[in-house]
Amino acid sequence: MKVALLSVLMLFWSSAECSNPHPLDPLTPSEINLVQTIVQKAYPTSNTTDHNLIFNYVGLDEPNKLQILSWQSSNPKTKPKPSPPPPRRAFVIVRFQKQSHEIIVDLSKSSIVSTKVYEGNGYPPLTLGEIEVATQLPLSYEPFKKSLRKRGLNVSEVQCVAFTFGWFGEAKPRRLVQIKCHYRNGTANFYARPLEGVEILVDFDDMKIVGYNDRYVVALPKAEGTEYRASKLKPPSAPKLKQHDGPGFTIDGHTVSWGSWVFHVGYDSRNGPVISLASYYDLQKKKHRPVLYKGLISELFVPYQDPTQEWYYRTFFDSGEYGLGQYMSSLQPFTDCPSNASFIDAYRASSDGTPVKIPNAFCIFQKYAGGIMWRHTEAAIPNQTITESRSEETLVVRTVTTVANYDYITDWEFKQSGSIKSVVGLTGILALKATNYTNTDEIKKDIYGTLVAENTIGVNHDHFFTYYLDLDVDGVENSFVKSNLETVRVKDGSIPRKSYWRVVSETAKTEGDARIKLGLKPSELAVVNPNKKTKQGNKIGYRLLPGPMAQPLLLNDDFPQIRAAFTNYDVWVTPYNRSEKWVAGTYVDRSRGDDTLAVWSERDRKIENKDIVLWYTMGFHHVPCQEDFPVMPTLSGGFELRPTNFFESNPVLKTT
Amino acid sequence: MKVALLSVLMLFWSSAECSNPHPLDPLTPSEINLVQTIVQKAYPTSNTTDHNLIFNYVGLDEPNKLQILSWQSSNPKTKPKPSPPPPRRAFVIVRFQKQSHEIIVDLSKSSIVSTKVYEGNGYPPLTLGEIEVATQLPLSYEPFKKSLRKRGLNVSEVQCVAFTFGWFGEAKPRRLVQIKCHYRNGTANFYARPLEGVEILVDFDDMKIVGYNDRYVVALPKAEGTEYRASKLKPPSAPKLKQHDGPGFTIDGHTVSWGSWVFHVGYDSRNGPVISLASYYDLQKKKHRPVLYKGLISELFVPYQDPTQEWYYRTFFDSGEYGLGQYMSSLQPFTDCPSNASFIDAYRASSDGTPVKIPNAFCIFQKYAGGIMWRHTEAAIPNQTITESRSEETLVVRTVTTVANYDYITDWEFKQSGSIKSVVGLTGILALKATNYTNTDEIKKDIYGTLVAENTIGVNHDHFFTYYLDLDVDGVENSFVKSNLETVRVKDGSIPRKSYWRVVSETAKTEGDARIKLGLKPSELAVVNPNKKTKQGNKIGYRLLPGPMAQPLLLNDDFPQIRAAFTNYDVWVTPYNRSEKWVAGTYVDRSRGDDTLAVWSERDRKIENKDIVLWYTMGFHHVPCQEDFPVMPTLSGGFELRPTNFFESNPVLKTT
Repeated sequence: MKVALLSVLMLFWSSAECSNPHPLDPLTPSEINLVQTIVQKAYPTSNTTDHNLIFNYVGLDEPNKLQILSWQSSNPKTKPKPSPPPPRRAFVIVRFQKQSHEIIVDLSKSSIVSTKVYEGNGYPPLTLGEIEVATQLPLSYEPFKKSLRKRGLNVSEVQCVAFTFGWFGEAKPRRLVQIKCHYRNGTANFYARPLEGVEILVDFDDMKIVGYNDRYVVALPKAEGTEYRASKLKPPSAPKLKQHDGPGFTIDGHTVSWGSWVFHVGYDSRNGPVISLASYYDLQKKKHRPVLYKGLISELFVPYQDPTQEWYYRTFFDSGEYGLGQYMSSLQPFTDCPSNASFIDAYRASSDGTPVKIPNAFCIFQKYAGGIMWRHTEAAIPNQTITESRSEETLVVRTVTTVANYDYITDWEFKQSGSIKSVVGLTGILALKATNYTNTDEIKKDIYGTLVAENTIGVNHDHFFTYYLDLDVDGVENSFVKSNLETVRVKDGSIPRKSYWRVVSETAKTEGDARIKLGLKPSELAVVNPNKKTKQGNKIGYRLLPGPMAQPLLLNDDFPQIRAAFTNYDVWVTPYNRSEKWVAGTYVDRSRGDDTLAVWSERDRKIENKDIVLWYTMGFHHVPCQEDFPVMPTLSGGFELRPTNFFESNPVLKTT
Repeated sequence: MKVALLSVLMLFWSSAECSNPHPLDPLTPSEINLVQTIVQKAYPTSNTTDHNLIFNYVGLDEPNKLQILSWQSSNPKTKPKPSPPPPRRAFVIVRFQKQSHEIIVDLSKSSIVSTKVYEGNGYPPLTLGEIEVATQLPLSYEPFKKSLRKRGLNVSEVQCVAFTFGWFGEAKPRRLVQIKCHYRNGTANFYARPLEGVEILVDFDDMKIVGYNDRYVVALPKAEGTEYRASKLKPPSAPKLKQHDGPGFTIDGHTVSWGSWVFHVGYDSRNGPVISLASYYDLQKKKHRPVLYKGLISELFVPYQDPTQEWYYRTFFDSGEYGLGQYMSSLQPFTDCPSNASFIDAYRASSDGTPVKIPNAFCIFQKYAGGIMWRHTEAAIPNQTITESRSEETLVVRTVTTVANYDYITDWEFKQSGSIKSVVGLTGILALKATNYTNTDEIKKDIYGTLVAENTIGVNHDHFFTYYLDLDVDGVENSFVKSNLETVRVKDGSIPRKSYWRVVSETAKTEGDARIKLGLKPSELAVVNPNKKTKQGNKIGYRLLPGPMAQPLLLNDDFPQIRAAFTNYDVWVTPYNRSEKWVAGTYVDRSRGDDTLAVWSERDRKIENKDIVLWYTMGFHHVPCQEDFPVMPTLSGGFELRPTNFFESNPVLKTT
């Protein structure tokens, strides 16, 4: 044994990873080998189940924090030869003779520092090795084979997985694990073909089936439509995107086509970019299916929070008072937009009516951020490892609006999977207030912001982006559905679990039903087409996945909030009305709030199975910090409109 | 006039933009010209202020939705010659003789369709032209010049901007606009040098100063440190990053250096990736400043919401029962990670203690997603337009953990601006239940999920990612500060505004003070170093910008929730304790919840000015949809640790 130890030790010291060892480096293969050798020697096994030795956890036993910090401070980057790290130790949990043993191994001395038998509740993690053995047990278990015969299934196509069993009040829970079996035949996606109704309990210490129950038989879902390996999929495939270093899309006038998406990019001097008529070409249905008739930022309310004489009135409506389009900035190639971007100009009318060009007002680019559109690794199937992974490329339409000091970046982002995101970025320069203060020590009363530099206060404020989203989900007539997640107490005495949540969906009948403050209760919000259903009978819809939330904090009867009463709820739904596009009214400068969404919506009009508009406000409270001076690093937030039962299945499954 | 109109018309029809006109195209320059000509003719001016004609809004008067949809359906993509769009109209608001006129112009007939004088409240948007004139007014206004002389300032360096005045209950508000002046001298960032205390009111219809007030004098903030133009900035600059198609970073053992960041990437079979000793090299202070001593996902609780016999127990703890590291998948070059990624292997111990390699367990790459790190366009300074914009590149450390059916993508992302983000992506395969149902019509009772395919239910569930975040903000001893945003009623009778919000900060003394359910009230959460301050006297800190929120919905006395009681709050803070790393306990399988954060924290230990650990839970409720079948498109969410008064100013200002 001594020879073996020594050779392991030599391997350890010669390991390339150790040329510059760090005390937090994970255990190297040599160190793991050393742990194995030392622990196996101390816990001799006889190859019977009772005397198995299972390594449930082997990890670095970290030096304490003070040791690490002291090592680190003695190793400045400039030092050519770093000092050696503190002694390396491993923390090990083994399962041996039905007990959990905690072992600390000193790797430098090749010795056990301490051992302890754990006497408390619970068990260490299941190991892959145990699971491999346990999931094979049913295959030679007669009652299970009988269950298979009853269902006309072949044992060679069965694939089982191990599920932890939890704890539901048992006084002395044994180390039991549930084994759930599935059927592969014709697919790698065996999860889609569960043998429902069959329960198999395995004692992991004895590695034996100790409970079996075949309660009921239901249909075995078919293999067809479950496969995800590119090599096994039949056409039609999703349109192949061009490389992200080319344009990857076409622009015809103001109409953009990319992948499955077609949409129109408009411009308005008040709203800035306007996305219209966005539709997705459905490969299965072989047609363009409408999603978003129109999307735009209807208003951007920016109230400052300094109530003094010179500042109290600063409660800006950047769309209605200034114009998000009027203030659009020309985009800089390579910095505002990547090198593969295409640019579109915009034209506004000047004060005297003359057209004024905003060069490069829009940029459009295919974005590759290194993301993964979908993936799965399948390691459970014997003799093969499957990994299918698809990288994500999206299409972005970007504009920047600079209203004096602030720069707002607006990205409309289209995903191949059918989502539309809108992301805003806040950058530029804070609204700053001069002060005699140079240090917070001098401050005796509220300064309504942060001392961001000498003599300079960054004043507290908010940004409320209210979006107009005229969704036409697979048609013009839609409904708005709120699905609340509600806790249910379990009444079935035979089940030891006490609760679960269920989905309770309500369709909003009138505007009053659809006013929502987000975050108060768990819910999902969707616009659905009540006149169409999927093959499985689900309502065809798009969900709103909200972005940053910020409730207005001004009093409801305060003048700015009366004018911005449309921010009193995060979500409103109205019937489409051609004249209701500007949420704060047509004449917003010095307005009195008598022509806002909050007033229009008082009529409580019907919105079920109608052409409806979703108004959604995304908010930011901004307490400035010194990093925001003199120009703010971008702070971003966005929401997503995501298909939910709009497609019959994952629309980007067949992508290469 | 007829000749002029005709030529404009010809220009319009010959415009390249109209070769394939779309009814939602924005007005072309020719159309704007046409509008100008037609409206100017109808509203003749005499060049006196009283008879000015201001074009406050010129935009497309959209055809109604039915017209658009009918045009669209008559123009399938395959049709070679699209039908012409419906008649083009413009909607115009002009200010003329102190009235707002709404004019609809038919562009095809070159005629006015309708006009209306608006009699209601409020005014149209300010035009850039009006603002240009108004902001010059103070420069020749004697009382303002006197104010400048009093402050020793030079009128030629003054830069004014126009602020809308809002409405605060006035019975007949005139079209007044506030003009606020700043001082450029030595900087393009005049916003940083406001002339505080001076109020100038301009009547925009008369284009005259109608109110002036010089209430007080305060220090004029200095120009130094406010400039943002690269050409004006002195060294030292932030480290230049390599191009995103190269590696852009160095890996020494497990230590990664990139830009200003240095950190260690570890591996643990339970937690997966472990980020340690992340520090940022501060150019101004010329030293590495610690930020994050350790960050990892401590537990991932996934309770399913089907209470029936075969499903009720499925309430998985993926870290403690399975091991987020044990189940890490090898990453696929080009799809799981971009082409510029570097890969690191990991080693775990198998069941019998033998080392097992996970090839390509980590990938590290410099990410360029086309984003903007910061920008500003300055259009107000006479005779120059400034645009400074910096593209954003970040560094990502990615792993994927596949626990049977589900694939979890974990990205730790480092930003040059000092932020650390952690983003998780959920993809892979749903937990599926077989059923006899093939259509929702057949369903009479709760199926605890969604019929995602024939005979297949995607079962409702949650994902709670509980992070262990041992922040060491500029040192080991830190405090946790909760800053609530609280509405204040204005008591000063001279101010017509009724309310604002202020920041009320509380330092948590003990663990009990730091248990937080997010979203209940507006607040900012930060870990600060109470022993250090910025030059301006602000506490040096890092803020938590939370990601997706989901409160647990199981009953508190239900067994799975007792075991996962650490999810009862979104945020907890504990004093650092070497043995408290695994939030659900060391022995999680079949645990009883007696060794969790919720229990440790009952001691209510002191946490002020201590080495503290922030525990943060990011949650997702998942109601499956058909798109999630057979493999889910990635659903992502992440949080950000963002410097807040950690730096003296924007640390990436000097970047090229």
